[in-house]
Amino acid sequence: MKIYDTTLRDGAQSEGISFSVKDKIHIVKKLDQFGLDYLEGGWPGSNPKDIDFFREAKELSLKKARLVAFTSTRRANAAAEKDRNLQIVLEAETPAVAIFGKSWVLHVKEVLKTSLEENLRMIYDSIAFLKNNGREVIFDAEHFFDGYKENQGYALKTLEKAEKAGADWLVLCDTNGGTLSRDIRKAVGVVSKMTKVPLGIHVHNDNGMAVANSLAAVEAGVTQVQGTINGCGERCGNADLCVIIPNLKLKLGIDCLSDEKLKYLREISRFVNEVANIIPDEKQPYVGNSAFAHKGGTHVDAVKKTPRSFEHINPELVGNRRRILVSELSGKSNILLKARELNLDLTKETPQTQTILDRVKNLEYKGYQFEAAEASLELLLKKIMGHYRPFFELEGFEVKVVNQAGKLVSEATTKLKVKGEKEICRAFGDGPINALDSALRKALERFFPSLKGMHLTDFKVRVLDAKAGTAAKVRVLIESADRESSWSTVGVSENIIEASWEALIDSVEYKLIKEEQKRPH
Amino acid sequence: MKIYDTTLRDGAQSEGISFSVKDKIHIVKKLDQFGLDYLEGGWPGSNPKDIDFFREAKELSLKKARLVAFTSTRRANAAAEKDRNLQIVLEAETPAVAIFGKSWVLHVKEVLKTSLEENLRMIYDSIAFLKNNGREVIFDAEHFFDGYKENQGYALKTLEKAEKAGADWLVLCDTNGGTLSRDIRKAVGVVSKMTKVPLGIHVHNDNGMAVANSLAAVEAGVTQVQGTINGCGERCGNADLCVIIPNLKLKLGIDCLSDEKLKYLREISRFVNEVANIIPDEKQPYVGNSAFAHKGGTHVDAVKKTPRSFEHINPELVGNRRRILVSELSGKSNILLKARELNLDLTKETPQTQTILDRVKNLEYKGYQFEAAEASLELLLKKIMGHYRPFFELEGFEVKVVNQAGKLVSEATTKLKVKGEKEICRAFGDGPINALDSALRKALERFFPSLKGMHLTDFKVRVLDAKAGTAAKVRVLIESADRESSWSTVGVSENIIEASWEALIDSVEYKLIKEEQKRPH
Repeated sequence: MKIYDTTLRDGAQSEGISFSVKDKIHIVKKLDQFGLDYLEGGWPGSNPKDIDFFREAKELSLKKARLVAFTSTRRANAAAEKDRNLQIVLEAETPAVAIFGKSWVLHVKEVLKTSLEENLRMIYDSIAFLKNNGREVIFDAEHFFDGYKENQGYALKTLEKAEKAGADWLVLCDTNGGTLSRDIRKAVGVVSKMTKVPLGIHVHNDNGMAVANSLAAVEAGVTQVQGTINGCGERCGNADLCVIIPNLKLKLGIDCLSDEKLKYLREISRFVNEVANIIPDEKQPYVGNSAFAHKGGTHVDAVKKTPRSFEHINPELVGNRRRILVSELSGKSNILLKARELNLDLTKETPQTQTILDRVKNLEYKGYQFEAAEASLELLLKKIMGHYRPFFELEGFEVKVVNQAGKLVSEATTKLKVKGEKEICRAFGDGPINALDSALRKALERFFPSLKGMHLTDFKVRVLDAKAGTAAKVRVLIESADRESSWSTVGVSENIIEASWEALIDSVEYKLIKEEQKRPH
Repeated sequence: MKIYDTTLRDGAQSEGISFSVKDKIHIVKKLDQFGLDYLEGGWPGSNPKDIDFFREAKELSLKKARLVAFTSTRRANAAAEKDRNLQIVLEAETPAVAIFGKSWVLHVKEVLKTSLEENLRMIYDSIAFLKNNGREVIFDAEHFFDGYKENQGYALKTLEKAEKAGADWLVLCDTNGGTLSRDIRKAVGVVSKMTKVPLGIHVHNDNGMAVANSLAAVEAGVTQVQGTINGCGERCGNADLCVIIPNLKLKLGIDCLSDEKLKYLREISRFVNEVANIIPDEKQPYVGNSAFAHKGGTHVDAVKKTPRSFEHINPELVGNRRRILVSELSGKSNILLKARELNLDLTKETPQTQTILDRVKNLEYKGYQFEAAEASLELLLKKIMGHYRPFFELEGFEVKVVNQAGKLVSEATTKLKVKGEKEICRAFGDGPINALDSALRKALERFFPSLKGMHLTDFKVRVLDAKAGTAAKVRVLIESADRESSWSTVGVSENIIEASWEALIDSVEYKLIKEEQKRPH
């Protein structure tokens, strides 16, 4: 079974995604390391950026993956040898070329506006030309399943032509993503009896069945699955390799990736989201943050007894982890498990347990969310249990943004009391929050030098009641890190400055407590 | 075919979702109007909020839907008549009750910690008790497919017991969401031969196949499909009714909802997201913002010629619409189509077309995104084409947030020049951006009274390069509306105040141009 990734070509059609050449090189390296078989890098004929990419990609020495350049069949009524697109794709110098041709009569007639016979010649000539130039050729039969439904004979004829021209793979595409699994299964069954060329599947997710459709095709005989990391792609996306790979490995027992590599699945998913600047889908199967998160009290109880009771696989197999969520729906079990994680001495009988539950419930009602801000939760637990004393007192702050004829200045002043001393600090910044952050650090670093080793790694703003417009409440989530670990904190307010301030303060206090615990007593 | 919604019970287990009683009542009314058959409102035995909900729900007069209360089988070694949970569920006074029982030996032994025989008695007694009290009883065979795999005989026995006790429905659950379609199909086939009681399906999405698995069950004979709006639910969520319903209607030809109601599908999806305060999944099949969005130049060309070429259904059938995206990947076709939408006189030959493309590309590179800010794009097009003159000039602004011993004050001053007059306005607000918004309006409303009829309906902040911490660039998207329409605008800056200001200014200018065009010339 070969895994064929098209994140960099079809995935880049996703709304909101725009990869730079550097991004693409970075992703190719990572996916090669991960152990995928084919990496489709782009369509050099359609996009000058992709020409640059393939030029740079020549310098890479990939371990396992074969790099693929994408192109279309030659223009109608012209020679393949003189086709500019085919020329450009050869210049990419990749070992393999994917070439798409039309299998749906509707597209031949109404989009290409050519004859059915000429389209067959275009497929034949283009593939023969690429084969003569020594490429491995992957033929993508575009809209194969729609074509098959309307004119089975013609759709199959396009595959025959591709086979005769020497194609190494025939890939059946559900380009519009609307085909049902049963129709995929039937058509793949028919094709696999007709040809000895190995088959591939390429589906889109417009009916929400891309993963199931890919698996149905595998069961019916294909040996190459195409998809993208996180299912990125135009409209509803392509088939998600982050779900297909573990389904193949763990459910169908098909060894498409080693056990060891599979453990990097979540990391790969996060990495591509980060490069693409896409907010991860928390509910994404296998790799999402919520994929093994337990919230309901009875479920948490059961998972404590036996994980298999509410987990379809061991999350570690795909590099994910179990999470016990603390929320108003959760019973005491969740709080106790969380306390155990934190080494806090809390039992069902401890009176503070109910206080903590009530407090969490109340804060969640106000818009706080501790599911993604475990450091703030830890501070809260410690405060309620009396394991906390403040490192400094806040006497006030002031933030000012001035726009003078287009020139912008952001400035912040903090007034703190630290170890008995009054400390007033002023700082400038890229914006009001950055200025506030700088003033706070400036004031504290003199007293707590360990803060120099900590930095913010993520900053998220979520508008809670969006309908309230600019008066809306916002939730700020901050992720911070030092050399050893990372932690996340939360703040909520109608005032974004205040919400950020809360999260900043929690983050700094968390770090100070962490340092204090390291020191010998 | 009956559609059974459990958004308010199983869906509420979703990470980050917390419905108030008012939210729940609101959703029940809306889903009843939409035409669903069963609405599962909650589990009164587990949650005092759900008791309140059912108390209030008694006042509702639903048009079509049957309200369902959820519960578990009686406790081990106790009488059903005396079981507190069963008592509470009767007090909900719903026409139907859903009751879950264990079908997986593992759960009976290791979670319930009772005997296999006692579990069968618990199922029988509880259902018989509810039937004696006049309820329609829906038996949810929890973990049915996992149980069937490990001990087929016992799993089937639990269904037999439920049937004997008088259950009106036997619902087969894939509670852990890890079962493949082929296994669902087989097991449903076996069960449907064994019983005359109508069958239902309830699946989770842990392997990304919940939609396909629900359809496989329908093909194998079930006549009730359970799911949630937008697939909300614990871990990776439940089966998404917003995808299953159109698949049933439009792909399988099963008339589970009228054509007319189907047109509200997108609205229902948006509504539940809004109440749940969930960011909509842009790529959600059928109802997502991107579901019919075309970005690639060749696709846009083809869709112009014949929509069916890249759309698996007509988007209007589900209340969605086609969108042509303007982005650096798009060719001139996209810009021209957009210009046509805006009645701007632009052709392939107009020199400004390339200028616009270059400008859009450059701004997208800086972090702007026009796909979700079409009013800003329109302004940009008009500015480049010379169809724009400024309504006012900005001379400067100042924003201040002061925290004095915990008390927060936000204040803004704007300096504008309007129709030759200098206008300095100061305003306070809930936060710095709200204060700025207020000062701007105060300054302009005197000159342009039509602005009083406009208000902000949405405000979103997205951190672009999160790794830069508080110095990160942010993108602000603002949605505004008046009585007739709504429009969205964008601003980008490292300074959140400036980014918001840009989007605010675009929004106001868009409104003023709209008003101006209405006046007779």
